[in-house]
Formats: sequence, structure tokens, C-alpha cells
Amino acid sequence: MSAVPGTDEAMLETGSTTDIVGYRLRRAQLSVFQRFLAAFEALDLRPAEYSALALIGDNPGRKQTEIAEILGIKRANFVALINGLEGRGLTERRAAREDRRANALYLTTDGARFLEKARAVQDDFEADCITRLGGPKARDTLLDLLGRLC
Amino acid sequence: MSAVPGTDEAMLETGSTTDIVGYRLRRAQLSVFQRFLAAFEALDLRPAEYSALALIGDNPGRKQTEIAEILGIKRANFVALINGLEGRGLTERRAAREDRRANALYLTTDGARFLEKARAVQDDFEADCITRLGGPKARDTLLDLLGRLC
Repeated sequence: MSAVPGTDEAMLETGSTTDIVGYRLRRAQLSVFQRFLAAFEALDLRPAEYSALALIGDNPGRKQTEIAEILGIKRANFVALINGLEGRGLTERRAAREDRRANALYLTTDGARFLEKARAVQDDFEADCITRLGGPKARDTLLDLLGRLC
Repeated sequence: MSAVPGTDEAMLETGSTTDIVGYRLRRAQLSVFQRFLAAFEALDLRPAEYSALALIGDNPGRKQTEIAEILGIKRANFVALINGLEGRGLTERRAAREDRRANALYLTTDGARFLEKARAVQDDFEADCITRLGGPKARDTLLDLLGRLC
């Protein structure tokens, strides 16, 4: 059991609430996302937007539904996300070659330039995460354990 | 770099997008929360609601602002959460002893009985997480690494 000081005299008993995997995962994820948002403030980019840009950059011309599925983002949410990136002139939709009713996603020239900057920020951000964890081995251990939870 | 099969012929290049700490954390957290929701479906309880009930149960009479702060939930969101639990007859607010303008939180008798059931579900859920991770040592390693990210 853990205890933490409250805002008045007495300690709070927190162990049965906070010493569980789901709770700790959520707190760590929120903490990392908060730092991500701070690091990407100048680029005005949220984590899911970064992931979408990077995935489209590595796989130009893939269907919108495919990109959404890989990222585990629901169709409606992904449409809103892509509308946002398209509105900023970073991505564009074209009819897919093998299925004219489907949208294929591409980076624009501006989008490719923007992604280059974002990748540099992400590399620094990742290096900071690895330092916090205690090195590349600790990072590998973490990714392995996280994978077992999926 | 990693690759995964797309919905048509070609593989997608995903490594530069998905082999990063923040992305993996988010996917693992979503996966665990999805299983949590399924496990708690009969009790109609979301993770943050479970945390609030457990923390109030262990610390009856603490201020609403204190409970929200420990859980890292914004004030407005926490008010909505507590309104929900109160509407279900599980918690009640009373004026705090040392500050009549502040709300102190308590479980109702029904709330205490409900929490007992929820704790049993959570214990099973945690045991499943530990099994997936590979045992209590792996769980301890994960919690330690997650703590370093906060």
C-alpha cells in the first residue's frame, strides 16, 4: 500500500487505487502525451496527427481506411483528423488506383517538408524518453512488456 | 523498421511510426482500457470511476479537490464524474468539517457494497494483466519503468 500527503494534515491511502497496471499505464501515457504536446507546440501537432503524417509519408498512396486501421483510429475520428491535416495543406486525398471510390492519401510538398521537421522533434523527444527510462535496453524491455498487454 | 500487411497486396512500412515509446504506450493503454470496460460491463463502470470509488472508499471524508488532484483529473471533469456516481446513489457529498464551503466525499452504503463487487472484478482483471506480462516480477518491472516516464 502507498500513501501520499493530502492538501491538509492527513496522509491519503492510495495503494489499492494506484498500484495497478491500468492506472499506472494511463498516468504514464498522459504524462508522455503532455510532454509530447509541449515539444510539438511550435508545430501545433498532436500525437495521432504525427503518427498519421509519418505513416502516410512512409506509405504514400495507401487507402485512408488502411492507414486508420493500422493506427487503431475509428473511421469517423480519422476522417476528422485527415480533414484537419488537409485544411493545413499537409496531406491530400486522391481516388485510389484500384478502387476509384476509395481515398488514397499523400503528403503535399509542404507536408513532406513539415514531416521532416516533425521527425527531428520526435527524434529528440524519443531520446529524452530513453534517457528517462535508463537507456535503450530499458526502452526495449518496456516495449516488450507493453506488447504483451496488447 | 517493422512492416505489417495492408488490406491489399503490399506490406505497409510502419516502423518509424510505431516503434516509439509514446505510440506503444498509447496502444497498450487503449488495449488494457478496452479489456477493463469489457470486464466491468456488468457493473457499468469506467476506469476513472473505479479509481474514484476505490480512493473515496479508502479515504472517506476527504475533499473533492484532493481526490481529483491525486487522480490527476481536471476539476470540471471530476465534478461530472462525481455527479454520475452520485446520481447512481454510490457516493455523497457533505460539507467538509474544517471548511464548510468545500465538499467532502463519502461512499453510501450501496456504494460500499458496489465497491466490494468492483474490487473483486479488479482483482481478477489485475491477475489477468500479470499473467499476460509473465508474472509479478514482470509487472514490477513495468510499473518501475512507467514511473520513470512520469
